[in-house]
Amino acid sequence: MTQFINSKEALVVEAIDGLLRGSGGRLARLDGYPHIKVVLRTDWDRSKVAIVSGGGSGHEPAHAGFVGQGMLTAAVCGDVFASPSVDAVLAAILSVTGKAGCLLIVKNYTGDRLNFGLAAERARAFGLAVNMVIVDDDVALPDLPQARGVAGTLFVHKVAGALAEAGESLEAVTAAAKRVIDGVVSIGMSLDTCTIPGSPKDERIRSGFAELGLGIHGEAGAEQVSFEDARQAMETVIGRLAPRMKPGPHVALLNNLGGATHLEMSVLAEELARSTIAGQIRWIVGPAAMMTSLDMQGFSLSLLPLSKEAETALLAPVVPWAWPGLASFGRVEILPLPDGLTPIQPMPSANAAKRELIKACCDILIAAEADLNALDVRAGDGDTGSTLATAARALVAALDRLPLADLTQLYRAVGMELSQTMGGSSGVLLAIFFTAAGDASAGGKDWISALGAGLDRIRQVGGAGPGDRTMVDALMPALAALPEGLGAAAVAARQGADATGSMKKAKAGRASYISQDRLAGVNDPGAEAVARLFERLHKARQVGEAAE
Amino acid sequence: MTQFINSKEALVVEAIDGLLRGSGGRLARLDGYPHIKVVLRTDWDRSKVAIVSGGGSGHEPAHAGFVGQGMLTAAVCGDVFASPSVDAVLAAILSVTGKAGCLLIVKNYTGDRLNFGLAAERARAFGLAVNMVIVDDDVALPDLPQARGVAGTLFVHKVAGALAEAGESLEAVTAAAKRVIDGVVSIGMSLDTCTIPGSPKDERIRSGFAELGLGIHGEAGAEQVSFEDARQAMETVIGRLAPRMKPGPHVALLNNLGGATHLEMSVLAEELARSTIAGQIRWIVGPAAMMTSLDMQGFSLSLLPLSKEAETALLAPVVPWAWPGLASFGRVEILPLPDGLTPIQPMPSANAAKRELIKACCDILIAAEADLNALDVRAGDGDTGSTLATAARALVAALDRLPLADLTQLYRAVGMELSQTMGGSSGVLLAIFFTAAGDASAGGKDWISALGAGLDRIRQVGGAGPGDRTMVDALMPALAALPEGLGAAAVAARQGADATGSMKKAKAGRASYISQDRLAGVNDPGAEAVARLFERLHKARQVGEAAE
Repeated sequence: MTQFINSKEALVVEAIDGLLRGSGGRLARLDGYPHIKVVLRTDWDRSKVAIVSGGGSGHEPAHAGFVGQGMLTAAVCGDVFASPSVDAVLAAILSVTGKAGCLLIVKNYTGDRLNFGLAAERARAFGLAVNMVIVDDDVALPDLPQARGVAGTLFVHKVAGALAEAGESLEAVTAAAKRVIDGVVSIGMSLDTCTIPGSPKDERIRSGFAELGLGIHGEAGAEQVSFEDARQAMETVIGRLAPRMKPGPHVALLNNLGGATHLEMSVLAEELARSTIAGQIRWIVGPAAMMTSLDMQGFSLSLLPLSKEAETALLAPVVPWAWPGLASFGRVEILPLPDGLTPIQPMPSANAAKRELIKACCDILIAAEADLNALDVRAGDGDTGSTLATAARALVAALDRLPLADLTQLYRAVGMELSQTMGGSSGVLLAIFFTAAGDASAGGKDWISALGAGLDRIRQVGGAGPGDRTMVDALMPALAALPEGLGAAAVAARQGADATGSMKKAKAGRASYISQDRLAGVNDPGAEAVARLFERLHKARQVGEAAE
Repeated sequence: MTQFINSKEALVVEAIDGLLRGSGGRLARLDGYPHIKVVLRTDWDRSKVAIVSGGGSGHEPAHAGFVGQGMLTAAVCGDVFASPSVDAVLAAILSVTGKAGCLLIVKNYTGDRLNFGLAAERARAFGLAVNMVIVDDDVALPDLPQARGVAGTLFVHKVAGALAEAGESLEAVTAAAKRVIDGVVSIGMSLDTCTIPGSPKDERIRSGFAELGLGIHGEAGAEQVSFEDARQAMETVIGRLAPRMKPGPHVALLNNLGGATHLEMSVLAEELARSTIAGQIRWIVGPAAMMTSLDMQGFSLSLLPLSKEAETALLAPVVPWAWPGLASFGRVEILPLPDGLTPIQPMPSANAAKRELIKACCDILIAAEADLNALDVRAGDGDTGSTLATAARALVAALDRLPLADLTQLYRAVGMELSQTMGGSSGVLLAIFFTAAGDASAGGKDWISALGAGLDRIRQVGGAGPGDRTMVDALMPALAALPEGLGAAAVAARQGADATGSMKKAKAGRASYISQDRLAGVNDPGAEAVARLFERLHKARQVGEAAE
């Protein structure tokens, strides 16, 4: 798979520099590229115990992302999944260690143990007080006496960092780190392997299976287990951790191994809350990507029994953004739905003229169904006529319950009816049109100006202006001419509708995806509907007047 | 691809509940599942302008992750890539809007515009002051008048949220939001499509190509462009944004679309810093996953011209952790390497007895090369003999520069020589052994006790104890017997070495990966080397004494 890198060789040094550039000057690196890759605080005065960790890269934001006040003093970065050299570790120790000494936090991998161990030895020869603790939180391989260090290491970073920041002695910080290591247990599960830059991907996980008990270096998990869903995945993981838990409250760290989506991680958090151990989890860290394995689509869960010491240290504020902090873990707060979602039905009232007008409009739209559909076949999905006719039939059926005598209420009620009976964008737009007209009417505008306000609103919401090949092209001139009479409005609407037939390109709505050739000479069905409405109303009025 | 979900239908509601459980009670949801999915602040008193945003899910941490003091008041969540309903938006508005009013921040997608628009209209009918702004920051499709809203939306959230928090009026907050919208430009690039839950993955991106100008819903990008590396990718993206930038300083938002690794994102940040527009970027937000498209392996870059107003609002503190904050963008701080990495060569000194002893030891190891290799062929990679012999030859060559007259210095010097000439874990362990022995000697221990201290240290660092099938099994009894004489030590070493041949399973080092059958009857080559050393030294001394 292709990646956003320049070369496998330059990857880590470029990534560290990229991190530093976005640190606001809070972080620096030692001048030892490419072999010595050490990230350290620029605000460090050696007056407190230095906390140094590191290891191979590929676990970002660990470890450099956790350098800063309250956590790590320095991070020693190897190449991807490769231990840093003794010289690199020594350079880090010598750069940050003062009289208060230095604690090395090392994950239990042979290369890291040896290289950090020899560097510590060399540093001691300079008279520096250097302690080293080894994190072995992974419970995946119970038969191996040397368990791996995985995401539980972050608890060690945080507790040691907080105590060091508080001015505790090297011995006190070391002892606290060891207590965390003694207590913390972790296990990971993954649905896919990671992509190691420059290497072909290992497609070893069978379909329908997950790897359980994996390290953070792309090595195979302890076993492949059948995978059903998020619930069963979390149950499986907890099944391995629960027997190792101590009584009493714990803090959980839910770690994204890199490639799981935020949605997946949140579902896993929910499953943790529904699990048998939920009652023992007082705090949660994450879900977040903290100790990753490149792009691995997996997660790990770490559990630490809560002592007063650990709780205080974990809650202490830190500067590095990568640490998400602790949140009390528990129930979902649910607030009642607000009043007003179910609209109050307006009191029906009678007005013969308005009833007749609405009925006439609806009849016109029902009669135009086939014609408008035919136009829409060429410009859209062929349903404009049916959509409008369906809404019109529903409106006719609703006539008896409309507040016909009150124009403001009537506009709003028509909007509500349309929004409930008319599908698609046009239903929403017409609902907005009438609801906004009702608002304007309530604000004192006359009936034509109120419709104009509705038009303004659908132009804003829908984003269509004149010339965009929508019903706006007919409705806008019609409303503008309406004060001069229905006849003028009908003429204006027709001109506007016919103009849409020669518009080169629709700029809004579904027709914007249709090629220009197919649209040539085809009126926009929405604009055509508006034109028919005004024309037929005008014609009916003329017939009526002639008959009087 | 399999995912950590329970069902496509339950995905979003379960994910929201999972998010809430980890919010420490800071967030709640409305009681409208499954249709109404609204996340809102529990600490909200309606006294300030409410900021409401939302849209389809699949963009996590947007939008619910940005709900909290200083950013959003509520987020309305649709299903994956689907607009929330009008009722859901209305429920959110009604729940959070007081006299100060409400601003809806909507990304420019038809469904969102319409549903938020109608909900706003309905809310206005209740007498609420509701404004709506539409974000259209995507420059991918310059011919489309309705540009999409993508990650630049986060700037709008942050600026509006900060002004609302500061108690500004709805009109002032709306105007500021519009100024951000007018200024911000964004574009995205991806190397792979996203995995929509329940749908087969669309494998449309050709090998060696990237999609440029993609939205955040898995829709195809505006074009496929050839992809070379991170530098060319960033140059391409900047090539589209630069012509749209205003003069003066900007803030950049570097967004992970979900599936890019932290390493990739940091390399892209570094390329941004090396780019032609770097001089115009005063602040950076990220790199971080803020507005994702599920697991899409891509990024987007958003640029906002800096006004005093925007800068102040963007720098204001916020509660939601998903917002990474602004960091000044610029140079990499580089600190000089510390003194002490290049060890000071000790002053050579003469001591005939020690010289003879070291020479004898080295000769023994050189002579044992083939035998030890043969043992290691069966337990490891067959190079123990050569590794030791090479180191021994180097030590012989270094005899003239060793401080033979000073035991402390001599131990340290031998440790240093071994670490420089001997590869692999054994070189590091022996270097630790002699360096720690030197420290103990400096601390006043006699020469045997000092070696014991070295042994303790390699047991700690290497993690191997007696019975673990390592050289410790011979070295530990030999050092314990050494006060009784070389003969006793030789016997103890031989017993220890021979015992390794019947140890069932190696617990440390490479042999821990070898099956038990292959190890049966094979002495550990490291332990055998120790036994040979003591046996041959003892024999030589007997021969020497006999000759005297």
